[in-house]
Amino acid sequence: MREALSPRLGNPSSAHEEGRRARARLERAREAVALALSVHPGEIIFTSGGTEANQLAILGALGALEPGGRVLASAVEHRSVVRIFPVLAERGHDVRIVPVDRHGRVDPAAFDDLLDSNTRLASVQLVNNETGVVQPVEALARRARAAGALFHTDTVQALGKVPLAVDRLGVDLATFSGHKIYAPRGAGALYIRAGLRLRPPFGEGGQERGLRPGTENLPAIAAFARAVEIVSAEGDAEIARVRGLRDRLERAVLAALPEASATGAEAPRAAPISHMTFAGVETDMLIAALDLAGIAASGGAACTDGAAERSHVLAAMGIDERARGAVRLCAGRFTSDEEIDRAAAAIVQAVRRLGARRTP
Amino acid sequence: MREALSPRLGNPSSAHEEGRRARARLERAREAVALALSVHPGEIIFTSGGTEANQLAILGALGALEPGGRVLASAVEHRSVVRIFPVLAERGHDVRIVPVDRHGRVDPAAFDDLLDSNTRLASVQLVNNETGVVQPVEALARRARAAGALFHTDTVQALGKVPLAVDRLGVDLATFSGHKIYAPRGAGALYIRAGLRLRPPFGEGGQERGLRPGTENLPAIAAFARAVEIVSAEGDAEIARVRGLRDRLERAVLAALPEASATGAEAPRAAPISHMTFAGVETDMLIAALDLAGIAASGGAACTDGAAERSHVLAAMGIDERARGAVRLCAGRFTSDEEIDRAAAAIVQAVRRLGARRTP
Repeated sequence: MREALSPRLGNPSSAHEEGRRARARLERAREAVALALSVHPGEIIFTSGGTEANQLAILGALGALEPGGRVLASAVEHRSVVRIFPVLAERGHDVRIVPVDRHGRVDPAAFDDLLDSNTRLASVQLVNNETGVVQPVEALARRARAAGALFHTDTVQALGKVPLAVDRLGVDLATFSGHKIYAPRGAGALYIRAGLRLRPPFGEGGQERGLRPGTENLPAIAAFARAVEIVSAEGDAEIARVRGLRDRLERAVLAALPEASATGAEAPRAAPISHMTFAGVETDMLIAALDLAGIAASGGAACTDGAAERSHVLAAMGIDERARGAVRLCAGRFTSDEEIDRAAAAIVQAVRRLGARRTP
Repeated sequence: MREALSPRLGNPSSAHEEGRRARARLERAREAVALALSVHPGEIIFTSGGTEANQLAILGALGALEPGGRVLASAVEHRSVVRIFPVLAERGHDVRIVPVDRHGRVDPAAFDDLLDSNTRLASVQLVNNETGVVQPVEALARRARAAGALFHTDTVQALGKVPLAVDRLGVDLATFSGHKIYAPRGAGALYIRAGLRLRPPFGEGGQERGLRPGTENLPAIAAFARAVEIVSAEGDAEIARVRGLRDRLERAVLAALPEASATGAEAPRAAPISHMTFAGVETDMLIAALDLAGIAASGGAACTDGAAERSHVLAAMGIDERARGAVRLCAGRFTSDEEIDRAAAAIVQAVRRLGARRTP
């Protein structure tokens, strides 16, 4: 990032030397990302982040097809996908939400029930951002494509957290974000299967093969590419280490609190995320107590924290947040065993104290 | 930026300490930007850059009004605005392009001719990105609002380059970008006059008062705010210094090449940009010759360089690019008199050599 912040690198669209140098750096980043994801560099478009990539994927793919038609999406998609649904409905699409079971998994049979010959696109995330539950994307993508529909997957929470080779997923579109793998904010990517044409929602022309306008954020893109390389080089070893930390946390908490439950624990889950619920405790109180103890926990997705909204993910899984307080923690690159033990002790103490207060 | 890249600052939407710290930093940046632009902090929305702000302004404002109606825009708007026109037409808007005179200025009488009671929005930039020509935004905004239309101005090329107090422009919406004032890429802003409601094109909810989704790029936003503060503190003195550099360049070139012409020189222009044309020289050859001489020049907007498109700005001014080669240079914060003299000498030499080759 520091290198790419230098004024020696200009606007990649400029014809002069500073521009050409920037263009070369940009294409080097694209090759690095493509290599790490097992796709072709021509299939990678850089965006300002995961949200923009999700918008471009869904609206861009539908924009290039005949108007109308059905769109499937799981009930546990990220907010940046969910908020597009009303836009799709307004444009004449028949948006159908595919339910998940109590473990948070999309049931392929339920997916089949909604998939028809009029379905244009299905969008199902690879890893849920609140619970870490992994969706059977490969199986769903196969079904969608057999029915003649495009398949998009949001893999923002999957990169570096589950083994991931995009070519094996069999999807048409996949969304990535830099800052979820320790790159600075400002860069994401969209994988677009070779040959697939998008019609960008804000008109064609501009950067990135005319698919999105705006000067490329080269420093953020260069950092994103480097982060992808690191994540790819470390591979399964780092994923296993982080999973060990997550499991250590849950073991300690679940052993001490018999009424605690790890959300989605019976489904395959990505390594870092732990989402736990506790009967008779309020989420907000729990988060506040943990915050005082120096533990940075969320009740659910950060995006909804400010809004004090209920989680649509937990609701889809049939978990009643009014009855059970929730806490979401992530282990990561810089997390130690000691920190995990401290977090577990803080959670146990807070839940006991809050629970005792409520049931005197 | 360095400070805001620290892991001590989290996601501004998170409830824990790292999140609150980030939220406080974000609001501090908003206050700094608002103060420098003479507006209220509640009127500033941060975006990923100028392009996103232009999209949100135009599509968001129209989305909150009744469908259809007329939209006015000048013939010399930035590509990020121009590419929205087909989208607007498709949505049933009657898009009318307001011509400019040969100096590149919108004629208020021509604007009046197109403005009718059915006009929903007019969008006219404050400073043109290719020529530096300043538009009479204050006068146009007054007319638009008197006719019941909203007024948006893209001030990306104006900030730090002309004296700018947004409250005095009398506009409803104004677009800003960080990297045009030496902040790193990744942050822009949209001024939304208090009380004006937008309906964001990708659905409501998410960050920035629900107007745009995506985790705020706090490092880029913090740097943007600091850059706005610097630009604001330096004020007219730095603008005058840069104007002096630009004038020094043009004086030297125009004195040596009698057939050269500074584009828009008879109109008010922003300080840094010099756009000159030369009879009997090809733009691409000229840019290549200057590049070899170590001068980073463009033929027009960088965004169109790769596409080898003709400039819609020059076409609107009646300048025939096939007959006259064009060069665009910007003086700036780190430009010295010596560099200006070197650039002038290189331009004179290149134009003479290329001209001599063509007319033997």
